[in-house]
Amino acid sequence: MSPPADAPRATSSVELTTEQIGPLVDDAVVWANQHGLLVALKDPKFVNPEYAVIHAPLSLTPVPFPRERFELAQKVQPLFNSLVDAVAADEPYLEAVLRPAAQHDEFTARLLRVLSDTRGARAALRAAGSEVALGIHRSDYMLDAPSGKFLQVELNTIASSFGCLSALTTRLHGYLGLRMEGLDASSLPPNPSLEALPDALAAAAAASGHMGPGRGGVVVMVVQPGERNAYDQQWLQLQLWERHRLRTLRMTLADIARTARLDPGTGSTAVLAGGQPVACFYFRAGYTPNDYPSDAEWAGRELVERSNAAKCPTVAYQLAGTKKVQQDLARPGSLERFVPDPRDAALLREFFAGLWSLDPADVAADVGGAAGAVRQALEHPEAFVLKPQREGGGNNLYDEELRQRLREGGEGLSAFILMQRILPPTNQSVLVRNGQWQQSDTLSELGIYGTFVRHNDKVLVNQQAGHLVRTKTASSNEGGVAAGFAVLDSPFLVG
Amino acid sequence: MSPPADAPRATSSVELTTEQIGPLVDDAVVWANQHGLLVALKDPKFVNPEYAVIHAPLSLTPVPFPRERFELAQKVQPLFNSLVDAVAADEPYLEAVLRPAAQHDEFTARLLRVLSDTRGARAALRAAGSEVALGIHRSDYMLDAPSGKFLQVELNTIASSFGCLSALTTRLHGYLGLRMEGLDASSLPPNPSLEALPDALAAAAAASGHMGPGRGGVVVMVVQPGERNAYDQQWLQLQLWERHRLRTLRMTLADIARTARLDPGTGSTAVLAGGQPVACFYFRAGYTPNDYPSDAEWAGRELVERSNAAKCPTVAYQLAGTKKVQQDLARPGSLERFVPDPRDAALLREFFAGLWSLDPADVAADVGGAAGAVRQALEHPEAFVLKPQREGGGNNLYDEELRQRLREGGEGLSAFILMQRILPPTNQSVLVRNGQWQQSDTLSELGIYGTFVRHNDKVLVNQQAGHLVRTKTASSNEGGVAAGFAVLDSPFLVG
Repeated sequence: MSPPADAPRATSSVELTTEQIGPLVDDAVVWANQHGLLVALKDPKFVNPEYAVIHAPLSLTPVPFPRERFELAQKVQPLFNSLVDAVAADEPYLEAVLRPAAQHDEFTARLLRVLSDTRGARAALRAAGSEVALGIHRSDYMLDAPSGKFLQVELNTIASSFGCLSALTTRLHGYLGLRMEGLDASSLPPNPSLEALPDALAAAAAASGHMGPGRGGVVVMVVQPGERNAYDQQWLQLQLWERHRLRTLRMTLADIARTARLDPGTGSTAVLAGGQPVACFYFRAGYTPNDYPSDAEWAGRELVERSNAAKCPTVAYQLAGTKKVQQDLARPGSLERFVPDPRDAALLREFFAGLWSLDPADVAADVGGAAGAVRQALEHPEAFVLKPQREGGGNNLYDEELRQRLREGGEGLSAFILMQRILPPTNQSVLVRNGQWQQSDTLSELGIYGTFVRHNDKVLVNQQAGHLVRTKTASSNEGGVAAGFAVLDSPFLVG
Repeated sequence: MSPPADAPRATSSVELTTEQIGPLVDDAVVWANQHGLLVALKDPKFVNPEYAVIHAPLSLTPVPFPRERFELAQKVQPLFNSLVDAVAADEPYLEAVLRPAAQHDEFTARLLRVLSDTRGARAALRAAGSEVALGIHRSDYMLDAPSGKFLQVELNTIASSFGCLSALTTRLHGYLGLRMEGLDASSLPPNPSLEALPDALAAAAAASGHMGPGRGGVVVMVVQPGERNAYDQQWLQLQLWERHRLRTLRMTLADIARTARLDPGTGSTAVLAGGQPVACFYFRAGYTPNDYPSDAEWAGRELVERSNAAKCPTVAYQLAGTKKVQQDLARPGSLERFVPDPRDAALLREFFAGLWSLDPADVAADVGGAAGAVRQALEHPEAFVLKPQREGGGNNLYDEELRQRLREGGEGLSAFILMQRILPPTNQSVLVRNGQWQQSDTLSELGIYGTFVRHNDKVLVNQQAGHLVRTKTASSNEGGVAAGFAVLDSPFLVG
């Protein structure tokens, strides 16, 4: 998310008096508790710290967004899904774009190494008709008040979270909309993520050939050891069971390294200690260096990549979602290499913010206007953000820090991108955390989920798959729902 | 519930290994949390102690019950509903039966006083066609191993709880039954309480004439100040909203005394401070003297009784559910006065345990065999229970204490009844509390809900309305789910 700005103020969707807020907060908290819109309290008093729970942090009322731009973001999502797939297929491109950053970012370097080390194995999978790639992406936007456009903050291709809790938040706002005056619940767009995400997982698992009577395939959800967002994941697991009778096992990368192996018969079937073949590996971890504390975790990741299970994501998908690739695609002509129809490319570019390389060679050659952007950023740092290639949030540089880092210069800047600062409108929201509410000026970020399944050359699924709105106080600089800074919200379409 | 006994051992419905139990407990806890099968943690750290929650105490597998006897208990429930209504209509009978106990029990005396003080007002309501009585009863049974019959422990006519959480427990066991081998989920009888209880409330509210466009009537749920079982109640509130668009206000008796009044225009319409008329008063409190710490609460109760709102229950319904009345109905010929069809009376008596008056006059005259029963109880106290007229549980006397109290004698014994001790079979259960499980020998109690709505002489609803099974370790003497002794369970029908 972008930091606060002297941005215009949008009209709040609903004006509430303090007398109305109290009972409505009670309605919201109880409904959230009753319907599994939960986070774990992490109270060490309980045998499992996930067992004692409380409502997820939430906004009492939805946030207004322009209908036409919201619907355009939904419409463009399949194009982003296809773009990720096309970029991921061009491994020389990925390597060329990421090599400079990899020199200063060991994590990117290691992912590139997995990509090259598994190339032969993956070619064999493809030749055997066993390549199944699953994308569960989320394209994150902020509304840019000056232009009136949603501009892409980033495109997440691994571990996109909150899809299930977000769908529950939409239902909560539908319920509250009927309980209170003034909110037209029909302006809440439907949010199919609670169905669309498990359906994509099931389609990918089925394509792997390991599901069905007598085959016993399972879905492995790759999780972090001390997972903070268990109920979002648990909803996905429950929906996989309820809608598809698919069993999910939760394993860390270390668990996979320790207990899984490639079946010597096929050479590529991932088999667990219990003898079950894995139909799909679904990563809700693996996006940060912290998830790979030792070589064992990297060995687990490589085993997944060599296996004939469906992978969400492949290493190539993960690399296609990096900021450095995002920045490179924004260069004139770069995106267009991967998008056959020029109208589609133009539509995608409607969502691109200004993005510039800080690689010294690019700046020297003023590629895509990099030199001019750096000059402007030194003069007006408040109009830019400096983002490291590394994932995880919380590492962006703004204002004076940005200026200082640019002045420092050096080769290390290759691992950063320079980005136009998006100026979102502020709203008035009632934020509810741990049952306590607070009325604040807020900023909101929109995420659109996309699902994509490809079995060798056949695209089985490619669709918009729901949305997420996260809202935070305008005075906090960044951070997500799980980190306690933002709350779950919904869009309320106007215009 | 009865205490442990040298009773026969039933075969458990499912045999689980320790390796199977762990993952299944995790499935159960997560499902319960996701679906609102919750209790509040009462953690004072939170602004509202109801907001932080954990799964309700539950049994991992359902308990076997004989199908034919279970279905008979369902079938007989409408007869019990009609019986309560008939007994309540015979106020001279209620007064005659309860007067001796009232001399030693101030609570019963006070309820009788409300009954007589409001007699004129209630007659006027009836004359105006405005009498609406709502029964949400629960008839509690234990399976008596020697006879193979369900014998009635008590018939609750006020604040019968756990209807909603019980329906969720049935769903949980249906889910777990599909997740594990060996349990045939089709042997879990449907449990309609999550629909039937709110539907009866809505029917009664509608009959009051205060609902519908422009009339703005509300349902008042009368609750205890520090309610322990909030989520069971919240489900009822939510279902009233979702199924009937009825708003519920939670008020204590003191709140009612302070803010409600009878509208001077009609003389009988209960009106709240906000100006809304009350369509239905639904008591989830008011069954123990603790709920009436001062005259204000009694004034609240009397206001309800004088109002033309639907009442669940009326004071007469409440008195018809007392143990003393239960005992009197068991006397030869007594039940038959209220049940026109002798076959119905015989069917009801299938569920009666041995019950005897301890009123000195009754014992002297050996009414219903009272003198013989007292002699037997002195010799074999282990075959009897001594129960006070007072509600609330935890006050029963067994074994040596029972013998001593009988020997003490005195007029005070009029406030007790002597009851045959039911000898339930024990089962093996996995009990789960706060995420921790324990395998135990257990006893189970079955409750059958009944709903009944009468508008003047017209019976609008009279049905069986779902069930509840509570299970506790065979070694604990008594106590309920809310008190932390028992867990929620489901029946699994065999034979």
